[in-house]
Amino acid sequence: MRIVLIGFGTVGQGLVEILRDKAADLKLSENFVPQLVGVVTRSRGSLYHPNGLDLNGLLTAIKAGSLDQYPDTPGLERGWNALQTIQAGADVMVEAGPSNFETGQPALDYCYAALENGQHIVLANKGPVAVAYHELVSRAKAAGKKLRFEATVMAGTPSIRLGTQALAGCKITQARGILNGTTNYILTQMEDGMTYADALARAQALGYAEADPTADVDGWDAAAKAIILAAALFRARLTLKDMNVRGIRDLTTDDVTAAKAAGERWKLIAQVTPAGGSVQPTRVPLSHPLAGVSGATNAVTYITDLLGDITLVGAGAGRLQTGFGVLSDLLEINEGELISRI
Amino acid sequence: MRIVLIGFGTVGQGLVEILRDKAADLKLSENFVPQLVGVVTRSRGSLYHPNGLDLNGLLTAIKAGSLDQYPDTPGLERGWNALQTIQAGADVMVEAGPSNFETGQPALDYCYAALENGQHIVLANKGPVAVAYHELVSRAKAAGKKLRFEATVMAGTPSIRLGTQALAGCKITQARGILNGTTNYILTQMEDGMTYADALARAQALGYAEADPTADVDGWDAAAKAIILAAALFRARLTLKDMNVRGIRDLTTDDVTAAKAAGERWKLIAQVTPAGGSVQPTRVPLSHPLAGVSGATNAVTYITDLLGDITLVGAGAGRLQTGFGVLSDLLEINEGELISRI
Repeated sequence: MRIVLIGFGTVGQGLVEILRDKAADLKLSENFVPQLVGVVTRSRGSLYHPNGLDLNGLLTAIKAGSLDQYPDTPGLERGWNALQTIQAGADVMVEAGPSNFETGQPALDYCYAALENGQHIVLANKGPVAVAYHELVSRAKAAGKKLRFEATVMAGTPSIRLGTQALAGCKITQARGILNGTTNYILTQMEDGMTYADALARAQALGYAEADPTADVDGWDAAAKAIILAAALFRARLTLKDMNVRGIRDLTTDDVTAAKAAGERWKLIAQVTPAGGSVQPTRVPLSHPLAGVSGATNAVTYITDLLGDITLVGAGAGRLQTGFGVLSDLLEINEGELISRI
Repeated sequence: MRIVLIGFGTVGQGLVEILRDKAADLKLSENFVPQLVGVVTRSRGSLYHPNGLDLNGLLTAIKAGSLDQYPDTPGLERGWNALQTIQAGADVMVEAGPSNFETGQPALDYCYAALENGQHIVLANKGPVAVAYHELVSRAKAAGKKLRFEATVMAGTPSIRLGTQALAGCKITQARGILNGTTNYILTQMEDGMTYADALARAQALGYAEADPTADVDGWDAAAKAIILAAALFRARLTLKDMNVRGIRDLTTDDVTAAKAAGERWKLIAQVTPAGGSVQPTRVPLSHPLAGVSGATNAVTYITDLLGDITLVGAGAGRLQTGFGVLSDLLEINEGELISRI
């Protein structure tokens, strides 16, 4: 499997680390032999080699600051942009660039280009799925290619796979959960007595929150994930405008203390049905299945007809955790390709 | 897909109810058109019809007390035992009889007979998997048939599927959880002030606990499920003798009150690694992910290399919940058959 990787930040590096460290295992247990032929960044260089790039060389170069540090080899191309790299050829395009919830761009155009060039798509980038899921699905179907996006919700914790595959035969009527790790971390710190500002600063220091924390603390990241779940589970066509969104910015230490005194906890709960959804700070009793989900951990509950409530709790972020989300999509595509060759 | 069902108790009836009520859905969404050709009970009659039995007729008859109440139709056979029924022919045998953790019998012989007759196997019965997993896998492989057993652990909550499929590419090093609903229900009631004896009586009245509650309250049911998880996740060959098992029979109201006062809860925790395992009443702090799992709900945590801890919480028992576990295995086998026919 020849792979082009667009974006080489935390997630992309996590993926490459896993591919490097688990190469023997993945070949043996999963019959998976990936070849990373292209890596593209916005400002830290780009590489393409039709015979594959050296994974350790890539990680060493990016840690030194730029892919320009990657050693020269015959046939190596440097400096191509994403479209040039996609057009050079691969079996799968992985998009792990930053998410844009308004337009999905430029990742959305990369997705279309990948399909036009006969490539499956794996997204860690939430933008294209949140903004244009149905258009993407219809173009992928027309091209006979797969579109996968496990890493967009709860990192590699298999929330999408659970809802769309493991629960096949069940009807899911609602999904609700804690889908943003940054805000959950801040709320947990506030329960331990920190102010909102201090907790946010600590989340930023730990790399949970971006320098501009708006998407997290105002609820938009959780809302985008809820929209992605609604699209995957219900084929619902929701946009951010269909979501009733409030973040945690206005929660005070007093609010948190009052909840604690009443045996309750504030959680930023995202919920979605086929008709719409919301993201709202919510006081939940300690006995609530989501009350015990603390720190940067995420959780989702699917309400189903046959099974009742099914809750999945796991990492919501992290280098290897999100890298694994991409890997699990690659493995599924690989399995499909192996079957189609029988 | 022609199905033979051995055992027509709670689980078998739940499955048939789902197949009846979701027939149109399952055909449309999953391309699944099952035909139940045989149903066998130990003491309430047996039926076989090569063209399929009427699902509603089956449920009406068993609710009236016996399959003898099922209306006569041309070609209908009555009173065959399990082996005769299996030999009469089907694509899949579903075993939903009572679990025997010592010998796995008579279900184990039915499994071997099914494989000899070219049938896939779906088990809700824990006995054969707990006692003879490796022999079953090797015979199924030799026969080119599938062996599935989602319903044996946490009813239809996809614990097996999560560990063996959705987490493919991750290494699971340990599984631990609350795998027995009856004991968890009793412990939850004791926290609310009931004595062990009263809580057990209530569990029996609600149908959670058997008349002889030994397998549940002494931990053997949880141990068998842990062994099944170890076999599925690690290919480990554990037996009940490899498990350090203690039940909840000796826990007093004082023990429960003392834990509560210390901000802790007693839970019957089963844990298993490739090397062995245990079932032990354990005091866990309220912040522990398994502390909030109350009543008859079950939960399992997989400790993984790439994702950290992944916890799945859901029903551990119930007619439709366990029936769905069987259905999800049937759907997977059906998908495999559809692919192999392309």
